[in-house]
Amino acid sequence: MTARHERRPRAPADGHNRLSARRMGIETLHEAHVFMRADCPVCRSEGFSSQNSVLVTHRGQSIVATLYVVGPDLLGEGEIGLSEYPWERLKLKPGSAVRVSHPPPLESFSYVRSKVYGHRLSDHAFSAIVTDIAAGRYLNIDLSAFITTCAANSLDLEEMIGLTRAMVDAGERIDWGRTPIVDKHCVGGLPGNRTTPLVVAIVAAAGLTIPKTSSRAITSPAGTADMMETLAPVELALPAMRRVVEQEGGCIVWGGAVKLSPTDDVLIRVERVLDLDAEGQLVASILSKKVAAGSTHLVLDLPVGATAKVRSHEAAEELSHSLTEVARAFGLHVRTVLSDGTQPVGRGIGPALEARDVLAVLKGDAHAPADLREHALVLAGNLLEMGGAARDGDGWRLAEHTLASGRAWDKFRAICEAQGGMRTPPEARHRHVMTADRTGIVDRIDNRRLAKVAKLAGAPDDKSAGVEIHVRIGHRITEGEPAYTIHSEAPGELAYALNYALGNLDIVGIAIS
Amino acid sequence: MTARHERRPRAPADGHNRLSARRMGIETLHEAHVFMRADCPVCRSEGFSSQNSVLVTHRGQSIVATLYVVGPDLLGEGEIGLSEYPWERLKLKPGSAVRVSHPPPLESFSYVRSKVYGHRLSDHAFSAIVTDIAAGRYLNIDLSAFITTCAANSLDLEEMIGLTRAMVDAGERIDWGRTPIVDKHCVGGLPGNRTTPLVVAIVAAAGLTIPKTSSRAITSPAGTADMMETLAPVELALPAMRRVVEQEGGCIVWGGAVKLSPTDDVLIRVERVLDLDAEGQLVASILSKKVAAGSTHLVLDLPVGATAKVRSHEAAEELSHSLTEVARAFGLHVRTVLSDGTQPVGRGIGPALEARDVLAVLKGDAHAPADLREHALVLAGNLLEMGGAARDGDGWRLAEHTLASGRAWDKFRAICEAQGGMRTPPEARHRHVMTADRTGIVDRIDNRRLAKVAKLAGAPDDKSAGVEIHVRIGHRITEGEPAYTIHSEAPGELAYALNYALGNLDIVGIAIS
Repeated sequence: MTARHERRPRAPADGHNRLSARRMGIETLHEAHVFMRADCPVCRSEGFSSQNSVLVTHRGQSIVATLYVVGPDLLGEGEIGLSEYPWERLKLKPGSAVRVSHPPPLESFSYVRSKVYGHRLSDHAFSAIVTDIAAGRYLNIDLSAFITTCAANSLDLEEMIGLTRAMVDAGERIDWGRTPIVDKHCVGGLPGNRTTPLVVAIVAAAGLTIPKTSSRAITSPAGTADMMETLAPVELALPAMRRVVEQEGGCIVWGGAVKLSPTDDVLIRVERVLDLDAEGQLVASILSKKVAAGSTHLVLDLPVGATAKVRSHEAAEELSHSLTEVARAFGLHVRTVLSDGTQPVGRGIGPALEARDVLAVLKGDAHAPADLREHALVLAGNLLEMGGAARDGDGWRLAEHTLASGRAWDKFRAICEAQGGMRTPPEARHRHVMTADRTGIVDRIDNRRLAKVAKLAGAPDDKSAGVEIHVRIGHRITEGEPAYTIHSEAPGELAYALNYALGNLDIVGIAIS
Repeated sequence: MTARHERRPRAPADGHNRLSARRMGIETLHEAHVFMRADCPVCRSEGFSSQNSVLVTHRGQSIVATLYVVGPDLLGEGEIGLSEYPWERLKLKPGSAVRVSHPPPLESFSYVRSKVYGHRLSDHAFSAIVTDIAAGRYLNIDLSAFITTCAANSLDLEEMIGLTRAMVDAGERIDWGRTPIVDKHCVGGLPGNRTTPLVVAIVAAAGLTIPKTSSRAITSPAGTADMMETLAPVELALPAMRRVVEQEGGCIVWGGAVKLSPTDDVLIRVERVLDLDAEGQLVASILSKKVAAGSTHLVLDLPVGATAKVRSHEAAEELSHSLTEVARAFGLHVRTVLSDGTQPVGRGIGPALEARDVLAVLKGDAHAPADLREHALVLAGNLLEMGGAARDGDGWRLAEHTLASGRAWDKFRAICEAQGGMRTPPEARHRHVMTADRTGIVDRIDNRRLAKVAKLAGAPDDKSAGVEIHVRIGHRITEGEPAYTIHSEAPGELAYALNYALGNLDIVGIAIS
């Protein structure tokens, strides 16, 4: 067809959709929000309204954002407001010219729909979906649908491999130019359990290469990176990390600075909100980071317990099978270690308190937590065997010797110095001791509520804050004896934590004997 | 356990979490957004960060909102910013005292998770979920998971009944104190097809009671309420609607003012974004509104076509079965009419253009669109039979007689007057004719892209805007003859629509004969 018209209108020129950027200073994490006035000509002519997806473009860079329409108070005429994420991604300055248009259709979402209706997804489909997620084209609502359908119509092994590969391909990938590269990972859900610095120190002291990237806390009172930061700098970019590893054989740095499997961070954020831990996504999440990090041998710690992430031995065995099989497709060797997840490992919960446990074990202090020491030795022993530093069956002994001889402690200090200089963990200004209100046997510790006390006390933002636990399951405790101590930087936070603790006196369960 | 502490901290007082409300003027539809400064004491002491869910309370009324942390430019110290939805729901005034705390756990979401893992949901589970949705406790991310899992692990008939009942119970329910109450509904996806005013006029003129509530457009160029508003007021509250129905036997009002099945609006908004039309939700959506409206006999129009909502006869038969069976559980009698969904019904697409088609049919104009007239007669005929005004097989004839005799036209005018006075639909100031670029037979019309042209031209906000189509499938057209006309209020919008139309010359497919 052709067009016939007396006064032929011009097709909309580029400048038609141009607005002046204004930084709103709103933190929206990985979601892009933009704000336009209801009376804005672009809004009107494009027919935009609130919660529409729009394509925001500046100097050839584009991002899909959710639009919110605002009244005239927040913005001037001809202005568009942007939250922090699109502001930084588009590298805007105040007044930068920004174009707003309808986004191209999200083609890859048809694969998500097809999964909803029960079809398997191909490698190509996962690649298309993950590419769009990495480019910021999936809104929370889309991510939620993707995560939910992968949980509802579970991924088979081939699909897990497809998703893992797509996630690896979406980010950086490190080549260390040597082998083996050993690594460890804990599936989590247990407070404390800070074995990573011990395992890295032991394994590197025994001559293996272990370039460990760790995360910060998402919902827990401390991530390994938060704890390690009380002992040394952890925000090292890849070249600096490489230097440390080449010099010392190991490192413990924050993974966020290295940009491995960036879509994992996006998916995890939504999974936490939904509290959905589908096996397929858990496997792809763990293994994509390890494959991207160039690891060849991995020991996986799976704590099993009613208030841990993995709740039964059956579930642990199934997860272990999937992890091993998917890892195999990438030439990555995996051993899984099922461990006791019924109570915290070590005494401290919170960055500095956990660091002190780690130092006590490394230094061989008489009062060092025995459970943490033993658990680290088991994991390190397995890695020593996998990496060829010890024969099968000899790993634990070599690990124990490396630790007891002080070589692991020397190696740990050397790593801290190489990362920028060793630090002393801070101590909290305020403490409050929770005591037993009866005499009896400790028969239960609620990991989740104990972690909540530590967070209310200020962890992980206040590095010194958290909880120090004085009892273990099976111990006898007398009325008036300390059960745990709350550590806090500010009286207000201590009050919050204490308020919660007083309302939850059964966090440590005592059976009258 | 008990507490031992030298300086016993006070438990946080109520006033501790109190902030002063500021209206941000941000339109977030059914989602509540709140904004707090990063340095705000409540943020710090509660450990809140961006995208956390928070409970916002004012004078005993609470709402769950998504928190966004902002810099110091947007808010003063001690202030909390609120988007329009929570502002209105909590009935705030500038400076109102607002408390912010951690929301109670969303207990009903455990049912959503259980559905994800393949379990059936009980009536109780649907009731708990829908109650929480109605109270604004589900964020988009949660709604998306609920919708996705109901699509992935499809609802059986019992579950559809459970969901429908929960949705009915969450809103108002009308009792007309008489029977039968007849009703019609179109599953949609077809531009034009504005049979409702015709069916209501015919059926009411024949003595039946048809209190019709209709929706506004969500993604289409016009909803029945948008069209009807060009002919009479439609925003009638329940008492006014009742007066019209008692006087005239029928009405055509906007359902939004009547508050039937309010969760349906919340769910539909997310379903549209995801473009997921799961059968279970479609059935519950349609029937919950009809049951709540007090209907006893319902005729359902299911247009079938490649670019309509229902794409095959097989899918239509299955949907028809579910609708009939679920309706039976509520004592609602249903007949489904499968109709031609391959092309628009009538000539106009857009509120006023569709209204003119309706008037032409009612008045018996020689040029009235025959397809619209015939389709309305079929639907009205079925209703006349169901409601006992005609014997089976005689419905169409009675409908035709009622229309041809002018009694339907009289009744329609009376209804318009009763609703507040009849109006004349506006005419657009700008028109542009799209002509055929070749001679041949029209063999295809793309409903979706044609609707997009109408929307770009300004429909439904500009009541006069839209598209007038001059051809039908199977018609012969000569090069240079009009295929369709774009109507618009503003030259800018005309330019947008034209730009799109020129890039999509195959919206009307012409096969060279």
